[in-house]
Amino acid sequence: MNYSGPTVFELGEVAALKQAVKNFRKVATTLVGSGDDAAVVAVPDGRFVVTTDTMVEGHDFRTDFSSGYDLGFKAVASNVADVAAMGAKPIALVVAMVIPKQTKVSWLEDFARGLQAGCDELAPDCEIVGGDLASGDQIVIAVTAHGELAGANPVLRSTAKAGDIVALAGTLGRAACGLDLLLHEDKSLAKAYDEWVAIQLRPSPPIELGAQAASAASAMMDVSDSLALDCNRLANASEISIELDRSKLEGYAAVLELAALSMTARDDIPRNPMDWVLYGGEDHALLATFPPSAEIPRGFKAIGKVIERGDVAVLLSGEVLEPKGWDSISS
Amino acid sequence: MNYSGPTVFELGEVAALKQAVKNFRKVATTLVGSGDDAAVVAVPDGRFVVTTDTMVEGHDFRTDFSSGYDLGFKAVASNVADVAAMGAKPIALVVAMVIPKQTKVSWLEDFARGLQAGCDELAPDCEIVGGDLASGDQIVIAVTAHGELAGANPVLRSTAKAGDIVALAGTLGRAACGLDLLLHEDKSLAKAYDEWVAIQLRPSPPIELGAQAASAASAMMDVSDSLALDCNRLANASEISIELDRSKLEGYAAVLELAALSMTARDDIPRNPMDWVLYGGEDHALLATFPPSAEIPRGFKAIGKVIERGDVAVLLSGEVLEPKGWDSISS
Repeated sequence: MNYSGPTVFELGEVAALKQAVKNFRKVATTLVGSGDDAAVVAVPDGRFVVTTDTMVEGHDFRTDFSSGYDLGFKAVASNVADVAAMGAKPIALVVAMVIPKQTKVSWLEDFARGLQAGCDELAPDCEIVGGDLASGDQIVIAVTAHGELAGANPVLRSTAKAGDIVALAGTLGRAACGLDLLLHEDKSLAKAYDEWVAIQLRPSPPIELGAQAASAASAMMDVSDSLALDCNRLANASEISIELDRSKLEGYAAVLELAALSMTARDDIPRNPMDWVLYGGEDHALLATFPPSAEIPRGFKAIGKVIERGDVAVLLSGEVLEPKGWDSISS
Repeated sequence: MNYSGPTVFELGEVAALKQAVKNFRKVATTLVGSGDDAAVVAVPDGRFVVTTDTMVEGHDFRTDFSSGYDLGFKAVASNVADVAAMGAKPIALVVAMVIPKQTKVSWLEDFARGLQAGCDELAPDCEIVGGDLASGDQIVIAVTAHGELAGANPVLRSTAKAGDIVALAGTLGRAACGLDLLLHEDKSLAKAYDEWVAIQLRPSPPIELGAQAASAASAMMDVSDSLALDCNRLANASEISIELDRSKLEGYAAVLELAALSMTARDDIPRNPMDWVLYGGEDHALLATFPPSAEIPRGFKAIGKVIERGDVAVLLSGEVLEPKGWDSISS
C-alpha cells in the first residue's frame, strides 16, 4: 500500500496523534476521554469486562495485504468479539501501538479511520478512549476492549452442560479462504473472490448477538483460532464433550467451493473447503451452548450438541475432531 | 541476563503461560479472572479508570540492563502511576506481550514474578486479570491498567487554578541518573550507585498517594517524561502558568551530586544533577496542584505555584523552563 507525506517521526508524536484521532466519535459512557493520564468510563451496573489482543506485522498481518484502515478495523473486530463472547456490549477501547520510524502520518490516519469504522459498524456504543504510540522495528497493535453487562451474568466457556444445543452465529472458513486467496500466486483470484478476502482483512462478527444471547446461553466463546480448536477449549473448560453434525457445517463450506476449485485449477493443489471451516480462524463467529429449553436467539444456528464427557473432547459426526488451528506463538 | 531451559516456542504458548502465571495473586474485585474470553471486574461506584502504556526492546529498555523481573516491575509501575494520577486506586491489569521465538520460559516466569512484585509493592489491591502473548522480532510489553475512584471525582490535568500550590510526591532525576550510570563505560559505577540504578530499573512511585490526594488536589498528573515537559503539559491543559522554585528542587539534585562527580571524574564530561531533576523521566512522581486552602497530604512537597497564564508556560525561579524530556517516538 502506498502512503505519502511526512512520517510520524518528522511531524512529532503529539501532532500526528492529534491529526489521526480528530474524528473519533464520542459516546455517552465516556466520562473522561483521551488526553489525560487515563480515561474514565461509566458502567452503571458496577462491573466491566476487559480483554486484550495483539497483532504483529509479519506474524499476524502483512502490510502488502492489509491497509492501515484494514488493520484498524480488524483490531477492533477481534477484540470486541471477545467482549461479545462474554455476553457484554463493547463500550470502550484503548489502543497501544508500536510503529517503525518510517511510518507515514497518512498511514496512521488511515488506521485511525479503520478503528472508528470498526466501532461504527460492529460496536456503535464503543469509543476509543485512549492509546499509546511507541517506536519499534515492526508494527504492533495491542487493543484492550471493555464492555458492560448491563445486569446480565457473564457467559463463561466453562459452564456448558450435557444436553445443551451447540450453536453458532457468524461465518466460518471465510477468513481462512481469504488468506489462501491472498497468498495464491495468481493474484487475480483475490479480486475474483474479494468477498472472502474482505472477511480476512476486515472481519465482521455479529457482535450485538453476544449481549442478546447472554440470558439464554449456558456457555459462549468466540471462534478466533478455529472451530476445531475452540470447540476443544470449550469442551475442556466445561468438562463435557461436543458432538458436531457435519451436515450442519456443509453450508459454510459450500459457499467457498468455487474459490477452492479456482485455486486448484491454477496450481493443481487440492483444497477442501471443509478444512477452512473446521481449522481456519479469524472469522470471529460466536460459539454458544443453550439449554434444551432455551429459545435460541435469531442469528444462531444449531450445529451440534453437548454430551457427557467422554474419551474424546470433540466429535464430528462420529469422528475425532483434532484441536488444530492457529497458535499465536508456534504459527 | 542469562536464562536457561526451553523456549516458549518449544514448550507451547498455553503451557508456558500456565507456568508463568501460576503465582498471580487474586483480589476481591476480580469477578472473572484470566482464562476466559475476557475478565470481569467489579467497580462498585459504576466507573472505571483505564490507561495503556507500551515498552519496546531497544527503544525503551535493553535486555542487558533489565532482567525479565525488572521489566515486569517497571511495566506495572509506569501504568499504575497513570491510574494514581487520576486519583484512583489500581485494581486490574491486562498485559499484552510480543516475544521473539527464542524467548525462554524462564524469562517469561521471571517477567511474571516482576509483574506480581510490582503489584505487591505498589498496588496491593491490583490483580493481573488477563493477557495475550504473540510472536515478533523484539520484546514489546503493553500493559493496560484499571482503577476505581471509590466515589471521588477524577483529578484531571486541566483543572489547576491561579493561586494553587504546585506539589510533588515521589522522586525526581534518579531514574535518569541511573540510566546514565548504566550507560557509563566504567561499569563499576552502576554498582557503586545501585540505588539510582534500581529506580531506573524498578521505579517505585508513591501510588497510594494518588487516591489520598484525590479530594484535595485541583489537578494531578504523573511525571513520566520529565518535570519540565509534564509541567508544561499541565500548564497548557489548564491554561495557566507554573512558577517553580529552584531552591525547592535542589534537594532532589543534591543526593545525585556524588554520582555525577564520580562519572565526570572518569570521563571528564561535566554533568549537572539538576538536568536529571528537570529533564529526566521515569521516576513517575505525582505532580499535583492544591488550592491554597487545602491541606496538602503528607508525602507531597510544595515546589512552586500556579499563576495566571502568561507568555511562558513554566518558569523556574524567573527563567523559562523549556519542555525538554523524553519523547517516545523521536527519542
